[in-house]
Amino acid sequence: MSALSDLQATLDPSRKSWVESANDSNHDFPIQNLPFGIFSDSNNDARRVGVAIGDEIVDLAALQAAGLLNVPASKADVFARDTLNDFIALGRDAWRGVRIQLSHLLARDTATLRDNAGLRAKALVRAADARLHLPVRIPGYTDFYSSKEHATNVGSMFRDPKNALLPNWSEMPIGYNGRASSVVVSGTPVRRPNGQLKLPDEERPVFGACRKLDIELETGFVIGAGNALGEPIACADAEAHIFGMVLLNDWSARDIQQWEYVPLGPFNAKTFATTISPWIVTLDALEPFRVAQPVQEPQPLAYLRHDGAHAFDITLEVRLRPQQAKQATTISRTNFKHMYWTMAQQLAHHTVSGCNTRVGDLMGSGTISGPTEDSYGSLLELTWNGKKPLALKEGGTRGFIEDGDELTLAGWCQGDGYRVGFGTCVGEIVPARN
Amino acid sequence: MSALSDLQATLDPSRKSWVESANDSNHDFPIQNLPFGIFSDSNNDARRVGVAIGDEIVDLAALQAAGLLNVPASKADVFARDTLNDFIALGRDAWRGVRIQLSHLLARDTATLRDNAGLRAKALVRAADARLHLPVRIPGYTDFYSSKEHATNVGSMFRDPKNALLPNWSEMPIGYNGRASSVVVSGTPVRRPNGQLKLPDEERPVFGACRKLDIELETGFVIGAGNALGEPIACADAEAHIFGMVLLNDWSARDIQQWEYVPLGPFNAKTFATTISPWIVTLDALEPFRVAQPVQEPQPLAYLRHDGAHAFDITLEVRLRPQQAKQATTISRTNFKHMYWTMAQQLAHHTVSGCNTRVGDLMGSGTISGPTEDSYGSLLELTWNGKKPLALKEGGTRGFIEDGDELTLAGWCQGDGYRVGFGTCVGEIVPARN
Repeated sequence: MSALSDLQATLDPSRKSWVESANDSNHDFPIQNLPFGIFSDSNNDARRVGVAIGDEIVDLAALQAAGLLNVPASKADVFARDTLNDFIALGRDAWRGVRIQLSHLLARDTATLRDNAGLRAKALVRAADARLHLPVRIPGYTDFYSSKEHATNVGSMFRDPKNALLPNWSEMPIGYNGRASSVVVSGTPVRRPNGQLKLPDEERPVFGACRKLDIELETGFVIGAGNALGEPIACADAEAHIFGMVLLNDWSARDIQQWEYVPLGPFNAKTFATTISPWIVTLDALEPFRVAQPVQEPQPLAYLRHDGAHAFDITLEVRLRPQQAKQATTISRTNFKHMYWTMAQQLAHHTVSGCNTRVGDLMGSGTISGPTEDSYGSLLELTWNGKKPLALKEGGTRGFIEDGDELTLAGWCQGDGYRVGFGTCVGEIVPARN
Repeated sequence: MSALSDLQATLDPSRKSWVESANDSNHDFPIQNLPFGIFSDSNNDARRVGVAIGDEIVDLAALQAAGLLNVPASKADVFARDTLNDFIALGRDAWRGVRIQLSHLLARDTATLRDNAGLRAKALVRAADARLHLPVRIPGYTDFYSSKEHATNVGSMFRDPKNALLPNWSEMPIGYNGRASSVVVSGTPVRRPNGQLKLPDEERPVFGACRKLDIELETGFVIGAGNALGEPIACADAEAHIFGMVLLNDWSARDIQQWEYVPLGPFNAKTFATTISPWIVTLDALEPFRVAQPVQEPQPLAYLRHDGAHAFDITLEVRLRPQQAKQATTISRTNFKHMYWTMAQQLAHHTVSGCNTRVGDLMGSGTISGPTEDSYGSLLELTWNGKKPLALKEGGTRGFIEDGDELTLAGWCQGDGYRVGFGTCVGEIVPARN
């Protein structure tokens, strides 16, 4: 059996696991998914590489130590690390090799681990008992702006409704450099930022807490193989450089942003925090959900062209739960497939000037807004800059985010009888510093 | 003798070194300077920490191994590293302690190293025989825009001459996130970038090599002590977080920039390369050259206020040498003291939202343009977007940079009978990829 057919077998919708919770058709982490992350637990506070399966986490460091993961001896310690970078740096064949081995080990009919209670006790940790950490050390973070609906909405509000989309937008995946230091893992509290606010009645700005705190519903992809300075990545080759995807909340202080962003782009409005989900879903696991991207008109310049389908059908939701509320309200439902520019095009554009990328670099999609008013990816758009507050099931209305609000992004690909999910990307807002 | 008076003694203008080349009044690296860098040489290709003194480099790893540097035993190996980050992370007392010890060891009257030929052979390497490397691993790179003259010139050319300076510019040190991956050390060839160019007669952009390649004359400062997420650095405390300064050339593709930069700022126009000088001049060495910053009107908001003098008198030059030319032409002469916003204000503003910084982070000043036409820090300004080409002493005229041109930044503080210099920051342009 060839490696590629082994890889194909990991996607078989009928494959089940002896980890029974993984076979629930609504679970984010069936045996077809096998996302990678970094975890620790109360019995072992060392951070290490794990793979989610149902309600459990497979401890790859323990598996490897038990001789159940076949990796080159010189590289065997990549799982006993506090980030995935060294594992990812082994390259796509290694990622795929581990995926194939795990899919086999966890399959219902494979007895090796299933029937060895001692080994299972070492190699499986209940997710409920684990703490999840930032999965990668992020050398660089870039954020794109690739939803036509989002760019049009923002252009309408802040510039000119008649020429909402700038001429360059349709020619390239506009992007900007983000701040890597403040990328945090889901669950990290997010402090409302202070900054300069320009109030309409005042001649000069005032200093104070952001009054228009917002989310941006995004996904991010993680670079699995970088490129050298001066050596661009061709659009057709770009997906081979991508390890996988996460959910990403690009928290945004709209009032700070509006005052600061001309001419050099958003800075303090974004650098206070960016939250990502802890599990990286590999591009291999997303393969069955590949769909055609929107038609691009005008046809992009040659360096941005690729044949075939390069979008992915990922259902996305945003939920808001006020501090005292028992239930959250789903405030947006959309899909990643609406994005105009693909990840491959983003990466080709990013590197066409010769810019180098490195293992672990994070590339945000830009806010994912769909075509309908309930599918927008930010409160800015959902409430039209606060003018049309949203009614919550519990906890009143919202123009923007209030202190104590918990914002959750969720995303999954719907398969036939299973879903490949991302888990959640959660952040609760704590009050600004005095 | 207290540590502070020891530190003060390192600045004594009359102190001379037994390394005679350091006593030349025009040398960048007298005993008052002692800048830190990373080097290797033909006898030892391991990268390690060095300090420049005259025409020599002191090998701190060798000094430490010989027992001549007093650092805590558990930290002693910070000099045998390929970046300065671990040394810098020891904190300001450690930097100052090493400075004081080196100043003593290298002083004319100190026999320890001077009279020990065997030790000298191990601990001193001729700079001419050494290779200099990127001095720090840069977790994050931010670039500011703090020259009033530069912002006014650019605003005049690209927006509106009557309202050249945007209202936010006078209220905050405008900055944006740069790309850390492509920061290279002086001497690294820089490839002319390809990208999208919007020609005036064409409806759509074309893809091709940049036609308006430019420099930006800047300095950069390196973070010596970071701050935690959510914990801003107060303006009055900011200088204690700065390890030192370098020269920085923020290469810029003006045609790519003009087409891409609205609304999210420069991206491909800048990410292909940023060059820094190899020696980090510590803030301690710059102390005698502290001068008052320009008067700021309107008075900044409280979080941007600091008492005292926070500018530095650093003479700066840009030289251009065409490939076949023997001599370079000095195309700009200016001074860092013209900058409107100080480094302390930049760092206070960067972190006021709660954004964290990390050891090794690089913060660019923004293009340093003086008040006169020959003191502008970019070709864009010097030639007014190519309309007034510069006549070179040798090699014709220049609107923007041509292939094979070598651009050199130089900078120094003029003391009484000595100068504290930065060395040079050099890059030669190689042709674009086909």
